[in-house]
Formats: sequence, structure tokens, C-alpha cells
Amino acid sequence: MAGLSGTTEPMKVQGKHYRSIRAVAPGIIEVIDQTRLPLEFELCQLRSAGETADAIRSMLVRGAPLIGATAAYGVAMAMRDDSSDAALKEVVAMLGETRPTAVNLHWALARMHALLGNTPASERADAAWEEAGRICDEDVAINEAIGREGLELIREAHTRHPERPVRILTHCNAGWFATVDWGTATAPIYMAHAEGIPVLVWVDETRPRNQGRITALELQQQGIAHEYVVDSAGGHLMQHGLVDMVITGCDRVTARGDVCNKIGTYLKALAAFDNEVPFYVATPGPTIDWQLQDGLKEIPIEARAATEVSCISGLSESGALSTVRILADTTAVRNDAFDVTPARLVTELITERGRCAASALAMTALYPEQAGRA
Amino acid sequence: MAGLSGTTEPMKVQGKHYRSIRAVAPGIIEVIDQTRLPLEFELCQLRSAGETADAIRSMLVRGAPLIGATAAYGVAMAMRDDSSDAALKEVVAMLGETRPTAVNLHWALARMHALLGNTPASERADAAWEEAGRICDEDVAINEAIGREGLELIREAHTRHPERPVRILTHCNAGWFATVDWGTATAPIYMAHAEGIPVLVWVDETRPRNQGRITALELQQQGIAHEYVVDSAGGHLMQHGLVDMVITGCDRVTARGDVCNKIGTYLKALAAFDNEVPFYVATPGPTIDWQLQDGLKEIPIEARAATEVSCISGLSESGALSTVRILADTTAVRNDAFDVTPARLVTELITERGRCAASALAMTALYPEQAGRA
Repeated sequence: MAGLSGTTEPMKVQGKHYRSIRAVAPGIIEVIDQTRLPLEFELCQLRSAGETADAIRSMLVRGAPLIGATAAYGVAMAMRDDSSDAALKEVVAMLGETRPTAVNLHWALARMHALLGNTPASERADAAWEEAGRICDEDVAINEAIGREGLELIREAHTRHPERPVRILTHCNAGWFATVDWGTATAPIYMAHAEGIPVLVWVDETRPRNQGRITALELQQQGIAHEYVVDSAGGHLMQHGLVDMVITGCDRVTARGDVCNKIGTYLKALAAFDNEVPFYVATPGPTIDWQLQDGLKEIPIEARAATEVSCISGLSESGALSTVRILADTTAVRNDAFDVTPARLVTELITERGRCAASALAMTALYPEQAGRA
Repeated sequence: MAGLSGTTEPMKVQGKHYRSIRAVAPGIIEVIDQTRLPLEFELCQLRSAGETADAIRSMLVRGAPLIGATAAYGVAMAMRDDSSDAALKEVVAMLGETRPTAVNLHWALARMHALLGNTPASERADAAWEEAGRICDEDVAINEAIGREGLELIREAHTRHPERPVRILTHCNAGWFATVDWGTATAPIYMAHAEGIPVLVWVDETRPRNQGRITALELQQQGIAHEYVVDSAGGHLMQHGLVDMVITGCDRVTARGDVCNKIGTYLKALAAFDNEVPFYVATPGPTIDWQLQDGLKEIPIEARAATEVSCISGLSESGALSTVRILADTTAVRNDAFDVTPARLVTELITERGRCAASALAMTALYPEQAGRA
């Protein structure tokens, strides 16, 4: 993480640097239990492909890039027990079914499958472990590059109004907890802060799982000014000139630039468009699905459990972590986890290779090796 | 409530008809403690102007029409103790400061002030009590008329697609709990249901106070199909053709048709516009502020406490009503309670005098007595 003034290990919790995922011993990785954040910070170890699958499904690990990295380690763990072609096929299929929307999962599994398919069975366990580590390291490098590209936008906004902080709205958590390190949407913010640019982040609560709490935790740990708002507030803030830009992450971007991200992103994009606020999407290469065009029609949207909406965890008066039910258990709930923002509402994608319009032409100019597929 | 098939006392809780506010004895009114809904149903009595002011501020009573009715009774209670001009002026001023955004409060207070100013002091207590009762009865009649006007829209939608329910999205609670009876946005839905038209209501959660829980309770008590969704979901539902219309209430409408309502209404209006879904606002005459034009610039938006966002009440595992804190108490929160939807995004206002475009011309055609003021 060279090149940053002020800090070399930016992603800290109580002053200690963490990655969201870490190989601690052969066959064992350590992750942060994100279901307990921000109220409790607890590390836990995963030791089998089944445990990684459970962790992804339950959102103990979450965020498109982190899901991909975790799944890669899951494949590597399976290979230690059985490195046959059949076992490889089985673990890739099993992990591929854990969550449907984020494409990084499938990207990481395809990458592992392709590599290991060309590796003798006796060498697969070691090769898989190393490849999973490379996926993690590459994710860090991608996010750092996205940070540098996005930093330019924040610098420009600061130059236009040096008298006040640059006000950035973000939805969900596309921070370092959602990736291996840095985060996608947050990397530019961390770099701007490190450079001394005053920033104020509007943190969308992001119901139903309130990932805004995780974003607030990250920002607080880095000492970056932020205010937490309900998901309904963003439009009102924009109408009153209180938002200079929106930066979100994404779970899947189609070849023509439609953006699938946490439910509610589309509403913020509409409000940004209506108020002439630039709407940026931090987009790692592995999050682009070059095989899809129409995001609304083609991207599968995960339907999650009603209890995510009807129950909520917090600290009771005694300080204990406890869960309350906020709805009658007879109340029907629909809980779609993602929505699709049409490319027309996206000002620019911020990729590790530079910024570009959300269009097939601009995207393939940055990723020419994909031009045939898109 | 004549003219309805199927039911004559529609607003029921466990089969019993309630109004949200009721005079039980001279100087005493009974209301429902709405801070405990839907988890507990508790009636409580208010016996002084100070108690009515506290009830409005704390949102024990809420909803623009109900706030107005409660304030009217508050003035009447004060007149029983002291019916002097000074006391009248004082109570009107005191109640006028309880909540800034909904105009019904000021409308009711101005009406009481005007009437009592022309009434001998010795007769003010009785006159005020009767006038407060008239305000309540008129509210019921207004909502019933709004229901009939809105019913036409639901009938038309049903005729277009008789094979499936009419899917209606609503935000916040503009139901009978928010008014004296019937509700504004919900009255057309109750009448459609009574007429046998199948309806499915998408109930926005409406953070931070989750008034969607109150709407869900109302609909459940009336046996109307509904699904509870987070505030971020509406755009996604519309993109997928799952919403036939939006009907919301309002807290203040300007003379040119800008609509102030619960925070997040604007985002739903943007999504409705983007997806060609009609966006209707149920608008009682007393909610129109004929003195204002530009809603964004002129309507004061209430900023409420951070704890509304950071703490949430529900039932613990043992079934006790309990509150959990979901945010670190160091997290800064901004909690604006309302936003403004520009008239251009409103398909029609549904008033007790008929439906009309959200424009000065159309509105003064329905309310010609206001033409000079608008």
C-alpha cells in the first residue's frame, strides 16, 4: 500500500490492521463474523468447504469481492481432502449455489476450476491454496487502483468547493469489510482523507441488514466524518444541495453497464439524476459479467428470509446483544436483496483500469480482451 | 358510514370499532398510544392542553389530520381552565410549536382561534369542545369522500386486469390511525376491498419509526392482503411491473401542488415516474397550505431525535416489549422527518371534492374560495 501519505495500513480496527480474510495455517482461514458487526468484533476460523459455504450463505462473510475470495479458499480446502476431478466439480457446484447475485463468486470459482483442471491432481491442493491467496492479493491491488481513480473525482470536487467538506453518499457497505482490504466505494474516500481532503460521508442505513452500520464502523475507525441516515433520506439531502457525489459498490455489472447492487441503489441513482448529482459505481473487473446485457431481465435477484426484515439485533439496556421482533409473525414480508440501476443513470464506472461511461463501447475500451465476449 | 357494502364500521381492532380519538367526558379525550403499535394496543386519556401537546410531540398521536384534531381538543381543554383572550392566545401558540411540518395543526388552531375570538369568554369552553368534535366528524367525512374518489381509480385498474389483484404501494401510515377514521391513502383501499375488488398492498416499512407496521396492522385487522417491504424496495417492484399505483397521504401540499410527506416519498415518486406508474396523493382540504408555493424552499422540515434511528423497539424472545440500540452511541445521525415531492411527479391529488392535477389551476378549480389566496 505504497504511495499513501499518512498511513500505510489503512484498514484498522482499534488501531490494528486487519484484512477481512486471512490464511492462518494450511487449510484454515480467519474471517470476521460480520453478522455481529458493529456491535461485536469477533474473528472466526473456517476449516472446510462446507464451512465456507455456510459462512457465505449466512452472510458471516459478505460483499461481492470477499465472497469470491472466500469461495476460492473453500475450493482449496476441498482439494486437501480429495483432489479428484469429481471432487473439484462437486465443490465448485456446491459453492456456486450459495448466493445467486454477485458474479465475483462465479468468477472466482471459474478461475479456480480452470487452473486446477490443468493441474495434476497431486498438486491441486497446494496450487489452489496459492491461487486463493493470489485472488486476495489481486483484490487488494484492484481496490487500491480504484481508490486512486476515484480520488481524482474527490480532488476535483474539493477544488470546486475548498471551503467545505466533499459530501459523499454511499449505500450498503462496499468498504474493506466487503472486500479483502480498502473496499471499492470507500477506497477513494480513505485516500482523500489520507491526503488531507475534508470529507463528509452520508451513510445509508441499508435495510434490512443495516450494512450502513458496518460502513459507519469503518469510517469511525479511520477517523472520517460521517452521518448515518435512513435509506429514505438521500433524495431529500440531494434536493437541498447536501450531496456532491454518490459512490456505491456493485455485485454485478453487465457488459452494457447496468449495475446490480444492494436494494435501493436504483432509488438513489434516480434521485442523483433528478438533482444533477454525479453517480459513480466502483467496479472491480471481476464484478463485470461480460455475458449479460440487460441487467433487469438477466441478473438473478436473491430473495432472502423474512426474518432479516422482521427481526433486528442490537444492544439491550444491559448491554447484551439481543434480537427483537419488530413485526407480527403473521405479517407477510418480501425481501429482495438487490436491484438493478440502468446504465443511463450511472455517471461513470470507477474500475482498476480507469474510469469510463457505463456503456459497452467505453467498457471494452478499458477491457479490450473482453471485446469479443461483450 | 353509509353506502358501503359489507361493513358499516370499517375501522376495527379485534373486531371492535374505534376512532383514533374520542371525547369520553367533558375535558377528557381518549386516544391510542401509537408509539406502542403494532406490538401493544393501549388506550390512554388526555386531560389538559399540556398533555395534548406532549402527546403530539412524542408522536403518541401522529398523522397530520389526527394532530389537528388533537390540538383542537387541547385548545378546548385550556378554555375550561381559563377562557380569557390571553389564555386562548397562549394555548394556540404553545400547541402551534409542537410539530412544524404538518399544516393541519395550524389549520385547526387557526379555526379554533377564529371561532373563539368571536365567542364570549363565558361560552368558549363549550363552544371549543363542540368545534373540536366537529373537526373530528368533518375529518371522517373528508376521508370517506376521498375514499370514494380514490375507489374509482382502483376500480379502473381492476377492470384493466381483472385476473389479478390491484397492487398498490403506500408509504408511511396514512390510515385510520393517522386520521380520525378511514384514513386518507387507505380509504380507497378499504372501500375497494368492501366492494370485493382484490387488492394487494405493498407496505413500505417507513424508517425510522416504521409506521409501515401500523399500516400492516390496519390491513391485517380488515383482512386485506399486504406485504411489508423495506423502503428501498419500491423502485425494484415497479421495475418488475408489480405496482399498479402508488397512493400516499401528505402532511402539507402547497398551492401549486408540491407535496410534503414522510421522508422517502420523493424517492417513490421518482421511481413511479421512471416506470410510468401513477402516483396519487390523498389530500384533505385542510392539508393544503394555500399560502405557500415552492414546497422545497418554503415548507419547514422537522428534524427529529437521533434515537429514533439508533434505537428500535420490538418483542424480545420472552415476548416483552423491549428496546435495542442498533448504533454505537458515538455515531452521528441526521433524522429529517419529511421530504418534498415536486408537483411534476404527482399524477393526481385525491381530495374530498374530487381528483385534480397537482397545479394551482386545477386545485383552485376544486377550491374556488381559495383562488384569491393561491
